[in-house]
Amino acid sequence: MKLLKQLCEVHAPSGNEGPMKDFLLRYIQKEKKKWKNAPEIFHGDEFQDCIILKFGKPRTAIFAHMDSIGFTVRYQNQLLPIGSPDPEVGTILVGHDSKGLIECTLDFDRDNHAFYKFGRTIDRGTELTYKVNFRNGKQFIESAYLDDRLGIYNALRVAETLKDGVIVFSCWEEHGGGAVPYLAKFIYENWKVRQALISDITWVSDGVEHGKGVAISMRDRNIPRRSFVNKIIAIAKKRKVRFQLEVEGMGSSDGRELQTSPYPFDWCFVGAPEQYAHTPHEKVHKDDIDAMIELYQWLMKDL
Amino acid sequence: MKLLKQLCEVHAPSGNEGPMKDFLLRYIQKEKKKWKNAPEIFHGDEFQDCIILKFGKPRTAIFAHMDSIGFTVRYQNQLLPIGSPDPEVGTILVGHDSKGLIECTLDFDRDNHAFYKFGRTIDRGTELTYKVNFRNGKQFIESAYLDDRLGIYNALRVAETLKDGVIVFSCWEEHGGGAVPYLAKFIYENWKVRQALISDITWVSDGVEHGKGVAISMRDRNIPRRSFVNKIIAIAKKRKVRFQLEVEGMGSSDGRELQTSPYPFDWCFVGAPEQYAHTPHEKVHKDDIDAMIELYQWLMKDL
Amino acid sequence: MKLLKQLCEVHAPSGNEGPMKDFLLRYIQKEKKKWKNAPEIFHGDEFQDCIILKFGKPRTAIFAHMDSIGFTVRYQNQLLPIGSPDPEVGTILVGHDSKGLIECTLDFDRDNHAFYKFGRTIDRGTELTYKVNFRNGKQFIESAYLDDRLGIYNALRVAETLKDGVIVFSCWEEHGGGAVPYLAKFIYENWKVRQALISDITWVSDGVEHGKGVAISMRDRNIPRRSFVNKIIAIAKKRKVRFQLEVEGMGSSDGRELQTSPYPFDWCFVGAPEQYAHTPHEKVHKDDIDAMIELYQWLMKDL
Repeated sequence: MKLLKQLCEVHAPSGNEGPMKDFLLRYIQKEKKKWKNAPEIFHGDEFQDCIILKFGKPRTAIFAHMDSIGFTVRYQNQLLPIGSPDPEVGTILVGHDSKGLIECTLDFDRDNHAFYKFGRTIDRGTELTYKVNFRNGKQFIESAYLDDRLGIYNALRVAETLKDGVIVFSCWEEHGGGAVPYLAKFIYENWKVRQALISDITWVSDGVEHGKGVAISMRDRNIPRRSFVNKIIAIAKKRKVRFQLEVEGMGSSDGRELQTSPYPFDWCFVGAPEQYAHTPHEKVHKDDIDAMIELYQWLMKDL
Repeated sequence: MKLLKQLCEVHAPSGNEGPMKDFLLRYIQKEKKKWKNAPEIFHGDEFQDCIILKFGKPRTAIFAHMDSIGFTVRYQNQLLPIGSPDPEVGTILVGHDSKGLIECTLDFDRDNHAFYKFGRTIDRGTELTYKVNFRNGKQFIESAYLDDRLGIYNALRVAETLKDGVIVFSCWEEHGGGAVPYLAKFIYENWKVRQALISDITWVSDGVEHGKGVAISMRDRNIPRRSFVNKIIAIAKKRKVRFQLEVEGMGSSDGRELQTSPYPFDWCFVGAPEQYAHTPHEKVHKDDIDAMIELYQWLMKDL
Repeated sequence: MKLLKQLCEVHAPSGNEGPMKDFLLRYIQKEKKKWKNAPEIFHGDEFQDCIILKFGKPRTAIFAHMDSIGFTVRYQNQLLPIGSPDPEVGTILVGHDSKGLIECTLDFDRDNHAFYKFGRTIDRGTELTYKVNFRNGKQFIESAYLDDRLGIYNALRVAETLKDGVIVFSCWEEHGGGAVPYLAKFIYENWKVRQALISDITWVSDGVEHGKGVAISMRDRNIPRRSFVNKIIAIAKKRKVRFQLEVEGMGSSDGRELQTSPYPFDWCFVGAPEQYAHTPHEKVHKDDIDAMIELYQWLMKDL
């Protein structure tokens, strides 16, 4: 879980994923020698801060987003949300600006507008993220940013033995998207890949529980093609991986952008459930992480 | 009207349009021998559950959506909307799951959340649609799902004599879309077609009445290019087809996705008005259906 | 400022940008002989009512939108907004329909629905815009439609000396967009251009003031890539152009559509701030206009 802890600690709010790109490129360069198959690595200006790994003859792509929620410093001591953070008063936020490192405290005014408390003014436009407190317990992992560093962790674990497939590390997922359409274009036009698995974290709810297995989401705000979801459920059953079916009316993911892109992608969200989403204390059961990795390994073979 | 009745009875909520695809492919294979010109038929995995018919040297495409509104079974007896259904308490919903056929009753709790009443639990993710009661009266057709089975019916009637044109049967229109961008890409890149007519059903309102002709929509939530709408109005006048001008600030259609796609489509919504939209009792005047078919026949020639 | 006045007076609400296209094509044909470098001009049906100017070997594109807010006549005396107009009761609206020129008065009913007062009925679908009262003061310009005729004016002033670059005049920006995706496709596929500056007008706020320089927007509802914004700020500093940093959580621009297009565009909104946005009395400081033009000239060289 050292890798997961490192991933959680990278400062990469939506729009500023550069530090995560750098971390991942270093990690992949170093680790790929141990992987069963070496991927082709695509990155650079044509991909902004995204990364694509291509293994063998791909049929299916895994999408994991690199960005996190957070705050942007506006004027005076005001903060604007990046994505939909859900923290308490007193949460510690970190970042840096022209004057150095920042560790400040979050507060809200009567109208529920966020602002910071700090000994000095912070530069306009500075991004602040939660101070990460990674807790590796017996049954649970608790940390800020398991959404979606756990999705990245899953993809990197699957990469170790992957034969055929694409892994995509995307940007801006928490704040309206923007990278998935051109990433979809690239993998569809180059390799005709049009099956996608969204490696992301979902919610513990009145139908999805901790420790009952990875969630296969039949829908959220968007509805994927039923025949593709059915295939995934059938593989999970055949391979005897522990899973739960999720059915939601809200929430979305990189799947939304695949759905509306001008490429005929089938997609399905497959991920561990978490409690306390978008707080500094996201909490995921370790058995669900194991089931997630196991199911992805089978899906990349069987789909 | 036997065909229209059959179309209304196909179970094909957004995301599960497979049954409508199968129905249409069978119908087209059988009927195309009687059509004046045989179309090329495009379908298969690259089109998900969509179908494209290409006649002659096309300049204009007709878009009709295959999907309908409905409900998805969530947890316990909860229902989530697919699109924006607008039914009453007691409406009968049908579907099927691993345990067999379902015919259950819709109810709402105090917070206006939908749930079902049925003698047993229904599988998670099961889609339910209105039980169809098709009524062919003297002046009016009343049925669930005239939106947009009437749009499909119109397209199939126009197909009988069509010389040059494309007919597109699309998916997901009722629930956020997703197919139109790649369909637009295909017909634009292959045949340079960038004129589109949205064969769909609109609303009787304080400006659009039953029996006064097909509605040409000057705008809804989206605004099509004025010069294209003007051409359509001019053709309707020249050809002396009965029509009404619609001007709305809400509602959208496959036209929205053409508008925002990376292809320079001009589009206009042209369709019969209906009362009781998205209920099981959608009601359309037969004269307006006739005017719709007639106007489409002229538009496909004159545009 | 004669050109700016003329631009403000063109009637071109979203969806009906034809008159602005005609004005600009005439202007460009006439003026380009005086420009340092002659551009290639792209327009016609494949571009709907948009225009693209290509100078030399472009690396960066300027986007300025041609459309304005306004109203569409619905039924009876009702008006529907085009975009988000923000006028007072009594505002004079102009347009024309089949019966001739219109100059009517705006009113609101108790539910804040807009309607017109005029001696006769106005044709359905007629677009009305503010009557323009252009005031060229000592320090300030005041007029309807500085948003975004000032953005166009800036682009045309930059065109006078531009060596390498693209200038794009887009449509529908005020009402949901629709042209930018295919414009982005064209300039990316033909010239690999994927840097964009949004030449548009922003708001005077509690952090951005009249006369303090052009605003470089670090974010609005959308978040551009931080590394690109940083480059622009660095150029403004190096070239000693007066600028202000904007940080907002609302508002959007052609940048939103570049962000979500299937092309990897970096974009940044750079424009003068105005007071009384979307009223007939938009007000911009002349020094900020000068700073805007100056910064664009440098950016097109240095980026």
